[in-house]
Amino acid sequence: MSTLRRSIMLASRPKGAPSPENFSLEEDVMPEPGEGEVLTRTLWLSLDPYMRGRMSDAASYATPIAVGAAMMGETVGEVVASRDPRFAPGQIVVGAWGWQSHIVTPGDKLVVVPPGAPSCAYLGVLGMPGTTAYVGMKDIGKPKAGETVVISAASGAVGSVAGQLAKRAGARVVGIAGNSDKSLFVQDTLGFDDCIDHRDVMDLSGALKDACPNGIDVYFENVGGDLQQAVFPLMNDFGRIIMCGMVAEYNDTKPRPGPNLMAVVRKRLHIQGFIVSDKPEHFAEWRALAAPWIAEGSLRYREHVVDGLENAPGAFIDLLRGHNFGKLVIRVAEPTKGA
Amino acid sequence: MSTLRRSIMLASRPKGAPSPENFSLEEDVMPEPGEGEVLTRTLWLSLDPYMRGRMSDAASYATPIAVGAAMMGETVGEVVASRDPRFAPGQIVVGAWGWQSHIVTPGDKLVVVPPGAPSCAYLGVLGMPGTTAYVGMKDIGKPKAGETVVISAASGAVGSVAGQLAKRAGARVVGIAGNSDKSLFVQDTLGFDDCIDHRDVMDLSGALKDACPNGIDVYFENVGGDLQQAVFPLMNDFGRIIMCGMVAEYNDTKPRPGPNLMAVVRKRLHIQGFIVSDKPEHFAEWRALAAPWIAEGSLRYREHVVDGLENAPGAFIDLLRGHNFGKLVIRVAEPTKGA
Repeated sequence: MSTLRRSIMLASRPKGAPSPENFSLEEDVMPEPGEGEVLTRTLWLSLDPYMRGRMSDAASYATPIAVGAAMMGETVGEVVASRDPRFAPGQIVVGAWGWQSHIVTPGDKLVVVPPGAPSCAYLGVLGMPGTTAYVGMKDIGKPKAGETVVISAASGAVGSVAGQLAKRAGARVVGIAGNSDKSLFVQDTLGFDDCIDHRDVMDLSGALKDACPNGIDVYFENVGGDLQQAVFPLMNDFGRIIMCGMVAEYNDTKPRPGPNLMAVVRKRLHIQGFIVSDKPEHFAEWRALAAPWIAEGSLRYREHVVDGLENAPGAFIDLLRGHNFGKLVIRVAEPTKGA
Repeated sequence: MSTLRRSIMLASRPKGAPSPENFSLEEDVMPEPGEGEVLTRTLWLSLDPYMRGRMSDAASYATPIAVGAAMMGETVGEVVASRDPRFAPGQIVVGAWGWQSHIVTPGDKLVVVPPGAPSCAYLGVLGMPGTTAYVGMKDIGKPKAGETVVISAASGAVGSVAGQLAKRAGARVVGIAGNSDKSLFVQDTLGFDDCIDHRDVMDLSGALKDACPNGIDVYFENVGGDLQQAVFPLMNDFGRIIMCGMVAEYNDTKPRPGPNLMAVVRKRLHIQGFIVSDKPEHFAEWRALAAPWIAEGSLRYREHVVDGLENAPGAFIDLLRGHNFGKLVIRVAEPTKGA
């Protein structure tokens, strides 16, 4: 066992887009678990757009990461040492947080990964992003058969699940994705009815109008920016906008103006934000629902794997540019035996 | 009985603020009710901000008034002639629509005003504006004890009821009104905890912050414009914005930008528009609830009465400038015997 722990720290707060200088790779002494704690060796690290918010000290729903502290992110890890009787070395667990090779976590926060799906899926389709898509559709979007549902970042970890849920509800589903490969994947593999490659169209509003001849009943907002401006005028009466994220604006140093809200009155729109962690019970609910779909192959997903903890900063910078294709995960280490 | 009917017609569509030239007073032959119809003589005409939308041909939830047609507005009238067996001359009814001295209406659309409150109240506190306040608070705002609720246009027909409902729910209620008389009325008569005279403060955001030291949980939006911009950053996590109207922007010829919506995600805001007429069952529900409160004096309201149908255009123009003080009604005629 190595005697040093590697960690990616927040070296400084980014102004605008993060750059490599905002991160530093550091080594320190391997930590030891205290009473009730567990030491894990990280196998997989999840990288998600929301982490950009944690790098800022602007007001947010979560405490910012301190400069000089390790970056935060959910991991799948292998138990190395345990002082919680419920865990033993070799077990694969989720719930340890950090861009780190090894993490000490109270046993209460950890869950053993059940068999049936690759452990990595618990960071994506069966984890936070999948649950986010589920909650957004179930509590806010509520798509009905025959309605038109638009999904931004459609090939991404959240959008890919959100769109498939809308298809299951019988809706016509139109994705927005960032290149032609993603767009094909969204249609051919995920089974959306249509997908717009927003980097390929001159007139996004026009393309969206063509793809949604009956207007838009539900919009799953992951992106913001020009796309939000294009979607807003096409919303139908009683439309729902699931406010999940606005990744296109995360690097903005000054907030852009939003849409005029008079349409919200006229069209009786329902616009609602949510954070998946507000209701932790949704995680188990979603896993119970989705695991059989994964097993039978009826819920599709795609992972974008980058090897090596040291490559996490670069992969994260690319994620904010939309350069990933599927759920972005860092393969930090191999399990001792297949996991 | 007079032999001519007087009507205020839409002479032309306003660009920006309506002016007297957009209206014309015309006389025509007194209409006669057909089978199943009722002729009423208008006693009271309701003037409300939403009518500005009907004067435009921009997309709306309702068909615009045709140029050359009578302006629309709800009335209280006295039955003059009836070919519906349920109605007889002398009865006081609501449900006839038009800026007109006499109106023919299918009997199905009319309701006899019950005794107990002045008939005029059925255009205000017990009618559309009161029901609007009720639905907005019940279905969207859902104020809880101890929460902070901000009401724009607080002395108006909708705002005055909305704030009193929030007080009944145990919330701290802060009004925004357009002059010092209104502001005093909102506090002293309606019983709000505080009221800001928005024309009297240099720094609306600062004044609002001072009045809402714990932030804002519920905002009843009647106004839009600068006030909306000031409210938005003060919204608390899980806040609700009841999108009822944006009267400050109704005369705009180009929509203003709205607030950036990333706060909707971060704070899990719920922003929802509604139109009271979408669920007609709410009208009776509200009347049943509120009539005893009116009778016992625990629900307060104020009417702004202007005499004469010919003065409706001027009164309406002033309404959009906020020059009314309370629910604006036109006294078109006196009842044959007290009503």
